[in-house]
Amino acid sequence: MAKLAEEEHPVKAFGWAARDPSGHLSPFNFSRRETGEEDVKFKVLYCGICHSDLHFIKNDFGFSASAYPIVPGHEIVGEVTEVGSKVTKFKVGDKVGMGGIAGGCGSCDNCVNDCTVYCPKLILTYNGIDHDGTRTYGGYSDFMVANENFIVRVPDNIALDGAAPLLCAGITVWSPLKYFGLGEPGKHVGIVGLGGLGHVGVRLAKALGSKVTVISTSPSKKNEALAHLGADSFLVSSDQDEMRAAMGTLDGVIDTVSAVHPISPLIDLLKTNGKLVIVGAPSKPLELPVLPLLLGRKVVAGSGGGGIKETQEMIDFAAKHSITADIELITMDYVNTAMERLAKGDVRYRFVIDIANTLPATKP
Amino acid sequence: MAKLAEEEHPVKAFGWAARDPSGHLSPFNFSRRETGEEDVKFKVLYCGICHSDLHFIKNDFGFSASAYPIVPGHEIVGEVTEVGSKVTKFKVGDKVGMGGIAGGCGSCDNCVNDCTVYCPKLILTYNGIDHDGTRTYGGYSDFMVANENFIVRVPDNIALDGAAPLLCAGITVWSPLKYFGLGEPGKHVGIVGLGGLGHVGVRLAKALGSKVTVISTSPSKKNEALAHLGADSFLVSSDQDEMRAAMGTLDGVIDTVSAVHPISPLIDLLKTNGKLVIVGAPSKPLELPVLPLLLGRKVVAGSGGGGIKETQEMIDFAAKHSITADIELITMDYVNTAMERLAKGDVRYRFVIDIANTLPATKP
Repeated sequence: MAKLAEEEHPVKAFGWAARDPSGHLSPFNFSRRETGEEDVKFKVLYCGICHSDLHFIKNDFGFSASAYPIVPGHEIVGEVTEVGSKVTKFKVGDKVGMGGIAGGCGSCDNCVNDCTVYCPKLILTYNGIDHDGTRTYGGYSDFMVANENFIVRVPDNIALDGAAPLLCAGITVWSPLKYFGLGEPGKHVGIVGLGGLGHVGVRLAKALGSKVTVISTSPSKKNEALAHLGADSFLVSSDQDEMRAAMGTLDGVIDTVSAVHPISPLIDLLKTNGKLVIVGAPSKPLELPVLPLLLGRKVVAGSGGGGIKETQEMIDFAAKHSITADIELITMDYVNTAMERLAKGDVRYRFVIDIANTLPATKP
Repeated sequence: MAKLAEEEHPVKAFGWAARDPSGHLSPFNFSRRETGEEDVKFKVLYCGICHSDLHFIKNDFGFSASAYPIVPGHEIVGEVTEVGSKVTKFKVGDKVGMGGIAGGCGSCDNCVNDCTVYCPKLILTYNGIDHDGTRTYGGYSDFMVANENFIVRVPDNIALDGAAPLLCAGITVWSPLKYFGLGEPGKHVGIVGLGGLGHVGVRLAKALGSKVTVISTSPSKKNEALAHLGADSFLVSSDQDEMRAAMGTLDGVIDTVSAVHPISPLIDLLKTNGKLVIVGAPSKPLELPVLPLLLGRKVVAGSGGGGIKETQEMIDFAAKHSITADIELITMDYVNTAMERLAKGDVRYRFVIDIANTLPATKP
């Protein structure tokens, strides 16, 4: 019979968990393993609320069934409090970040090539099964214990709260910008959807030297996109004249929209050899018109995150270019309200929980 | 008022044309331009029957409306009979080949990069509008006049009749094998559909050094694929056990099926970073499941032919490796029967019309 979460491991831990598909989060006592030889233990300072957290707590993610209780959180920034005897990359006091990946098989092509996110035995930071067979719990908690190969160093000169969302939202747009050759001088990239991923994507792509066009259903976001985020141009996806005038102008598009939506107009925006990279995960299949792909050797691709080396590269780059997410910093006990607002898209652009300062007070 | 096809140009020509969407082909007198400075005039020896010929004569191609009369044919092999004063690449007596492209704007990025097939002002070999505003007529005819930049040299040591289908079917599979890095030692590629394109694709991919798996709805094609064409393995797409066992094993898939069909099982066959390249053009959108793309950074792409340099490279390679299409050589007056059989898939694998030997006898 499975042990209680509180007694499974030797070290007491505390966080907030969802217990059922209502998704309601509440204080939760559990436990974590001792800090192993290759492990880093770190106090959680801030944790971003990713849209997938909302999916997981409500068990509507499609590809991964939720096993309750769930402690969400995979946009984690913290401070190292203990390191294992074989840890070489981190020391006590270091600021570190952790994203959605806690481990992989370590030996497959994916793992060897910094693509652990595509390892069939990928261990998710929460709602996953760790190497020892126990369940993983995420960053809505007081501390984490992680293998040193799955955390990154957070540079000194970046705001820690605004950096938290980079660990998932940031790497999710950075990885395809780099892998598909879209984030570089001379390239013109479209960013579809101006949410948590999109707004960071605009900043990263601009800093990488690309020309950036934001594509949105909301004309009201034009000023924000151009004046605040620094995009070069803005297209209202429902404006057929605007969209037609922009046909064949983009080297690539990063599509962050996770609702079912038409991609044919986005394919039309691409030049020959252009790439539409989908990073949101609509729950139903999209309609793929084939002839427009054939008539320009165009590509529709998916990208599901990034590797740890890439994440380190991204966060170093972000620090150098003073790029963080625009966040609304909230207290731990506001999290259920935040989830309701997130479900309505009422956030600009990311909730981040002030874990270190507000979690302890919620302990029963 | 437009001139009659017979009087439009100074040089009398003769071929077979469809006059209306019945698609019925019959003898047709028309005319072609004088051989210009950069033009090559060549006697047509053989012309393959591409499936798109059938679409064009019946006006059901979707992306390009048919303008009658249509002289089809864009898998043409012939012998040069006259060259213009500025022609440098060809001389009288040379064996030449011509595919689906008769010209482009000459100045866009596509044209400059041997991607004329993607030029917005692409001139099709038939059912196109030439630079002088006149209509183009294809290879079901006694001779062609073409700009020297849009024909290739056919090597001496290749069967001319079996080589004809390489000009369209061959380049259509060759181009994505090369561009997407699938045709090379160490790569494992799937070929979906064992028709005109697929059977040549197997041979080219094998000769390029790839491991090749044929994927077909017809178990009956297994022996043919393995023993005759030299594929390494065979999957029946409806056999779920076979398909499941092969999940995640392919670097890429070339999908030659032009009927609407499920691509989700093909995406599942791909490794991380695998590429599904569609070269058939289903008339309706396909269902694109997004999560499987995200969970392996997979790509669905289209490829619509190839450039002239690529075509020369392909036909030289084919000659070196003794690769031709398996054909059924027919007489000109059999063409309507051949079209009926083609519509039913009753050909193994390509009809080629013996133009030089059988067209003249059909002249009224």
